[in-house]
Amino acid sequence: MIKWNNLDELKSFQQLCNTGAPDLTKALAGEEGTERVARYQAPMAAGLTYSYAAKQVNDDILAGLKQLAAEAELAEKFRELYEGAVINTGEKRRVLHHLTRGQLGKDVEADGRNKRSFYLEQQEKIRDFAQKVHEGVIANEKGEKFTTAVQIGIGGSDLGPRAMYLALENWAKQNGCFRMEARFISNVDPDDAAGVLNSIDLAHSLFILVSKSGTTLETLTNESFVRDALQKAGLDASRHMIAVTSETSPLASSSDYLAAFFMDDYIGGRYSSTSAVGGAVLSLAFGPEVFGRFLQGAAAEDQLSAQADPEKNPAMLDALIGVYERNVLGYPSTAVLPYSQALSRFPAHLQQLDMESNGKSVNRFGEKVSYPTGPVIFGEPGTNGQHSFYQLLHQGTDIIPLQFIGFRRNQAGMDVVIQDSTSQQKLCANVAAQIIAFACGKEDENANKRFAGNRPSSIIIGDQLTPEALGALLAHFENKVMFQGFLWNLNSFDQEGVQLGKVLAKKVLAHQTEGALKALSDLLDI
Amino acid sequence: MIKWNNLDELKSFQQLCNTGAPDLTKALAGEEGTERVARYQAPMAAGLTYSYAAKQVNDDILAGLKQLAAEAELAEKFRELYEGAVINTGEKRRVLHHLTRGQLGKDVEADGRNKRSFYLEQQEKIRDFAQKVHEGVIANEKGEKFTTAVQIGIGGSDLGPRAMYLALENWAKQNGCFRMEARFISNVDPDDAAGVLNSIDLAHSLFILVSKSGTTLETLTNESFVRDALQKAGLDASRHMIAVTSETSPLASSSDYLAAFFMDDYIGGRYSSTSAVGGAVLSLAFGPEVFGRFLQGAAAEDQLSAQADPEKNPAMLDALIGVYERNVLGYPSTAVLPYSQALSRFPAHLQQLDMESNGKSVNRFGEKVSYPTGPVIFGEPGTNGQHSFYQLLHQGTDIIPLQFIGFRRNQAGMDVVIQDSTSQQKLCANVAAQIIAFACGKEDENANKRFAGNRPSSIIIGDQLTPEALGALLAHFENKVMFQGFLWNLNSFDQEGVQLGKVLAKKVLAHQTEGALKALSDLLDI
Repeated sequence: MIKWNNLDELKSFQQLCNTGAPDLTKALAGEEGTERVARYQAPMAAGLTYSYAAKQVNDDILAGLKQLAAEAELAEKFRELYEGAVINTGEKRRVLHHLTRGQLGKDVEADGRNKRSFYLEQQEKIRDFAQKVHEGVIANEKGEKFTTAVQIGIGGSDLGPRAMYLALENWAKQNGCFRMEARFISNVDPDDAAGVLNSIDLAHSLFILVSKSGTTLETLTNESFVRDALQKAGLDASRHMIAVTSETSPLASSSDYLAAFFMDDYIGGRYSSTSAVGGAVLSLAFGPEVFGRFLQGAAAEDQLSAQADPEKNPAMLDALIGVYERNVLGYPSTAVLPYSQALSRFPAHLQQLDMESNGKSVNRFGEKVSYPTGPVIFGEPGTNGQHSFYQLLHQGTDIIPLQFIGFRRNQAGMDVVIQDSTSQQKLCANVAAQIIAFACGKEDENANKRFAGNRPSSIIIGDQLTPEALGALLAHFENKVMFQGFLWNLNSFDQEGVQLGKVLAKKVLAHQTEGALKALSDLLDI
Repeated sequence: MIKWNNLDELKSFQQLCNTGAPDLTKALAGEEGTERVARYQAPMAAGLTYSYAAKQVNDDILAGLKQLAAEAELAEKFRELYEGAVINTGEKRRVLHHLTRGQLGKDVEADGRNKRSFYLEQQEKIRDFAQKVHEGVIANEKGEKFTTAVQIGIGGSDLGPRAMYLALENWAKQNGCFRMEARFISNVDPDDAAGVLNSIDLAHSLFILVSKSGTTLETLTNESFVRDALQKAGLDASRHMIAVTSETSPLASSSDYLAAFFMDDYIGGRYSSTSAVGGAVLSLAFGPEVFGRFLQGAAAEDQLSAQADPEKNPAMLDALIGVYERNVLGYPSTAVLPYSQALSRFPAHLQQLDMESNGKSVNRFGEKVSYPTGPVIFGEPGTNGQHSFYQLLHQGTDIIPLQFIGFRRNQAGMDVVIQDSTSQQKLCANVAAQIIAFACGKEDENANKRFAGNRPSSIIIGDQLTPEALGALLAHFENKVMFQGFLWNLNSFDQEGVQLGKVLAKKVLAHQTEGALKALSDLLDI
């Protein structure tokens, strides 16, 4: 039987609290530094490498983390999860997003069928549909091809798919697999929908309505907004709209949609990029083959994540080091810094993934925990961030652990040589330089120009941001967050913290408020 | 003589440390809550209101903050600044961005001229230029009108102008002042420039090269990238490019540019949105009149910021409450949450503004301070964030102070009624509901559904996001950050923390590295 203990009940954690962190300014100096870079790295899927040489760990701490992984039964808990246990205890649900990209363990039967087969069926349906759209077999009223796909969704139905689309847009254009432009409408602010609708060719647009329950207020509101616009343009909305939802939702069998593709209750919104939620829009934009390659990357990374030894399991190791930073060293936030413009919205996706999963104060049994859990996650692409908030990262009073991401080659294949180097070389030189600047710092007579160093970072390095690499990257962070949830003994798969605001907003709209809420509503003229 | 003391040397701060924070769940309940909302608000410029009813303050704390403002001589320090003292001690520079939008105090003479006149001259030059572009007097090689303006810049030359452009794009379209589309190239990642160049009509694009020094490597690299593309398209680059720079920069008098507009060393990059840096692109995009209205909003807010009484000076009050939260209550980060899709990049701009200004560990005399300074700043628009990281904000183990922004009316003038309310009403209902949910929480038998409350927030409420409102909003935050810098006794106007990375990156590119840095560079194939 697996034991679900709080972090501070684990002996190996208590031992870790007594282990001093190494001085990075020394650990990375000279030949020892070279050797450390060579030794402190772990291969990931799709040719990626996780390098943790600039983390505040040493062999003792790594041994301690390995013990922690074993005592917390991380690998066993993951197996329970992917073999279909009800890990989401709050909502009494299985957690099956891994099955959208591969079969890691035993078959999972639920709702009277094999779940892997169910997700594959949906992929097949999407493949067929996308191909017909690309071929013009499915077309608009005039028989003309659709040129734009517009996803209507919010939260997990928006952030992940949007980040993935942006990540592969340039790559697809360069590699001849760009099929359709994709756009996204998410906010209930009517200016969001208006902005998108004003900038697309409605007659050639195919809208993808994404809501698992079929009841998300923002999404249904934006659907009406779009239907209104289609109607005013003399278009037949039912020929311009598909749905991604659960089979039990009111949208599932409505004639309002050209087609419907399904996920289910076992796929959390923030874990849904590899399900039909990401599958429809990415298959339409880049073709089902590209989406398939993305899934393969994720599946291969999941395989690694199933390893029990953290040194062979980068997601687990990353999770363990993160918990060490949060709970032993006491760092309150983490910056995600991709040196790739294509990953411009990847930090926003990870912000949801991580903060919505582990931003919790009670354990999976509903008991308050007495240690910090999920950190604040934020970030922007480098080198942009270097000219912005890096000042605080280098010289601020708090230490913020950093997660860099970098690729040897760019996507679009255009570059220039200035001052004897390409832009891509400058980009890579900057990320390497930052890692050392943060870790090693610099002495200076003038305290204002002094860098204390000992600011820890890791980097994931790849050859190029391909569909496979993106899938591996996504799975790495999904699994990292899952392992951290195990360590903190949280249910990472519910989100009760978003409910209260919804309830109160309904009261405001029904004018059933008093006191401060009414006064604020009056200020806002509601 | 003004005294520049560390925060912890001030008696009023020491007293504040002994003042208990009120329980918001009680303070906002019942009639007291209604009265609190009415009383705890301060008018801003352009019809905005700063509401701090949901901050953890009471009359005692506010009195203490007032004493702190007086003892720290905040109003006097601001006067010193706008009257031209060398407030940026590290770089020995004045700090004159307020003069780009108005004259708050005595004339400032520097470099042999009146600085307000200098900034006005540049505005006039930009006005003339923009009008000629709009009229087609300045046109491309074929005498055709330019349709797109592309800003090439990074950090302050990118984040502020980009955020301001996005903030007014829909408004301008709705109000008949949309003149040209604007795009932005910032990252040295060649895929950034490639992505923009692949999606615009080069022959009708006017590029704005923005670099104060004229030596920013990213910007010069991207300039070459663009020149290359123009040349390959058979276009004359010098007819497609203008420069915004300082008069002493190599770009100032180059024949490579159609025109050059100037800022100077007294305008920090992150404070440059109201200078020629924002002026050129915003005047081209929306017309000089709209840019003028934006400046008027900022000027009016600056006037309020010059008041000595924090209750009449929302920027100062916001700053004081922020320091109370950071240094007395110990909260490590702040979320900026605009309920307006148009402000989608405003948090990224504030992230730079705040973290680059106050992310420092030594005071203005180069002595290490012993208290926390600038917090981590992050944020996304609502309601999107509600479906993402709000889980942690509501139920995480850390308390994160929140800065909401909301408007009664949307910009684009399109809306739909669903379930008896418009999208705009839903948006406003949500922000009001969130404020109360965070502050008051909710009891529940099930600890997983419990909300502890006492999570403080403020909100800036406006009628609509107009150019004036945007100017006031920008100036509010600029001045807030400045006052916090005064309180922490920092030089908020230099950024030495960005230097080390640059130096090391040059070494990498020159292959003058060894040890860990060389090993990392090898991993990245540089």
